[in-house]
Amino acid sequence: MSWAGRAWAYCDAMRVLAGLDGALLDPEAPLLRADDLAATRGDGVFETVLVVDGKPRELGPHLDRLARSAAMLDLPAPDPSAWERCVKAVISAWRGGREMALKLVYTRGPEFGDGTPTAYGMGLPIGAGALRARVEGVSALTLERGFAPEHAGRSPWLLLGAKTLSYAVNMAALRYAERQGADEVVFLASDGSVLEGPTSTVVVANGRTLRTPPPSIGILPGTTQGALFRAAERAGWTTKVERLRPDDIRGADGLFLVSSVRKVTFVHTLDGTPLPNLEPRRALHAELSDLYESEYRT
Amino acid sequence: MSWAGRAWAYCDAMRVLAGLDGALLDPEAPLLRADDLAATRGDGVFETVLVVDGKPRELGPHLDRLARSAAMLDLPAPDPSAWERCVKAVISAWRGGREMALKLVYTRGPEFGDGTPTAYGMGLPIGAGALRARVEGVSALTLERGFAPEHAGRSPWLLLGAKTLSYAVNMAALRYAERQGADEVVFLASDGSVLEGPTSTVVVANGRTLRTPPPSIGILPGTTQGALFRAAERAGWTTKVERLRPDDIRGADGLFLVSSVRKVTFVHTLDGTPLPNLEPRRALHAELSDLYESEYRT
Repeated sequence: MSWAGRAWAYCDAMRVLAGLDGALLDPEAPLLRADDLAATRGDGVFETVLVVDGKPRELGPHLDRLARSAAMLDLPAPDPSAWERCVKAVISAWRGGREMALKLVYTRGPEFGDGTPTAYGMGLPIGAGALRARVEGVSALTLERGFAPEHAGRSPWLLLGAKTLSYAVNMAALRYAERQGADEVVFLASDGSVLEGPTSTVVVANGRTLRTPPPSIGILPGTTQGALFRAAERAGWTTKVERLRPDDIRGADGLFLVSSVRKVTFVHTLDGTPLPNLEPRRALHAELSDLYESEYRT
Repeated sequence: MSWAGRAWAYCDAMRVLAGLDGALLDPEAPLLRADDLAATRGDGVFETVLVVDGKPRELGPHLDRLARSAAMLDLPAPDPSAWERCVKAVISAWRGGREMALKLVYTRGPEFGDGTPTAYGMGLPIGAGALRARVEGVSALTLERGFAPEHAGRSPWLLLGAKTLSYAVNMAALRYAERQGADEVVFLASDGSVLEGPTSTVVVANGRTLRTPPPSIGILPGTTQGALFRAAERAGWTTKVERLRPDDIRGADGLFLVSSVRKVTFVHTLDGTPLPNLEPRRALHAELSDLYESEYRT
């Protein structure tokens, strides 16, 4: 059986892999050399795009952010049309569920190569944990991230705000949270400023106002947060991009972790303490989820 | 021509690759899957061992540190005998120069795999820059690393002191230094404590005393620094592992960046200013280099 047939046969674990030329590749076969700087140095950038019913969400903002991350790492500027071709190829070959997480990976390439970066797109199923979290909400732990907001402006080598492949700390923070019985993490800066989740953006709601921390303190501008804010503004909400303190997330009417894969997920428990007013929180979550989805209704 | 023949034919770019079973692999062929967590998350650990005339230096301390790094990342404990077999295979197949940098890479493996980690050893030539730096010394820039020494103890998710594959910041700091006309970087903690280089340990000499900062502030314990201190103690030097301030490295008789590949390299220029007493520094460098080499004379 061909690998395409194999992938089709195991739909739950379906993966689709394509290069920038749009050619499909066997996801079970090795792709990267042992000296690829992604593997030996975490030296590259990525994006994860949500695809629903064959339509990529926020592809433009994702490719823009990929380009900004690449620039921060001194990687050659990615070619948007090549990435779009790759995205199209993965989506066309997808035979999994209605939703797919499409990971775009762009690395500095082999250390002992000709200098050509490595680039590929990989279509993956949405994890069971993310699907459950969208419905049930999550418990989160605040953890120190270990830098001051001022570093983002003055220490470009720290790559704050670049979505790099060096995510070992983000993954370790999630494992740490899990050991403490929590699902998620909210990172805090050394001065207590609320930053972001390891793979998500923090959003709080108070009345008809949504707030999220500013990228200038060393975090990623969220593509899903951007879409949510756009939709909320159209529906008459006020949106603010401003610094948040731990009290702001504890005292908000609603606390959310948003990302492509988890969409708008609400936090029901913070640092081991259930947040008050669960039912109004659920209602708020339903309202914001609906607003977010309204961006993609035709 | 077989790939082994190709490797032999291009000795300057020679690379030897082996798996943990000791089987040789084609270094030009892809090894890692697109979903290997090394490539997508920098999720793994590594070591670089110097091999001279077929003998690996400090292999025990390197494998010990690999095991400690792996534990910090919740990776399965590496099997030392398997790694020794891999090291032996790479060394036996090496047809390059007298010296080889042997990189040991241990990753969490494919995200959509059976949970088996990816592990390999890769023999590489010593880079021209490192060879030159050993002789001529280097200029270095102090750069903020963005965390406080206290984080090492209280924030295990930051993986401070683990040698992870998430080295994008370390590489970005070196590129930043290069743009400022410097060869190397000395990282400082947020309180000004001297930490380490992106791929090296900081050592200072004053009189007959060598000092290096303590791993407890969130840095790697240096294998080459350990060997140098061992040799120095035997020769009657005093060695201290204690915190250093920027003034300590500026005012020392000698400032060194030590690592497996660069051995003992002296710093002649710090933050754009030539350090005083160049000739005594060179003499000190020659003496410490000789001490270090004495560890491996039979």
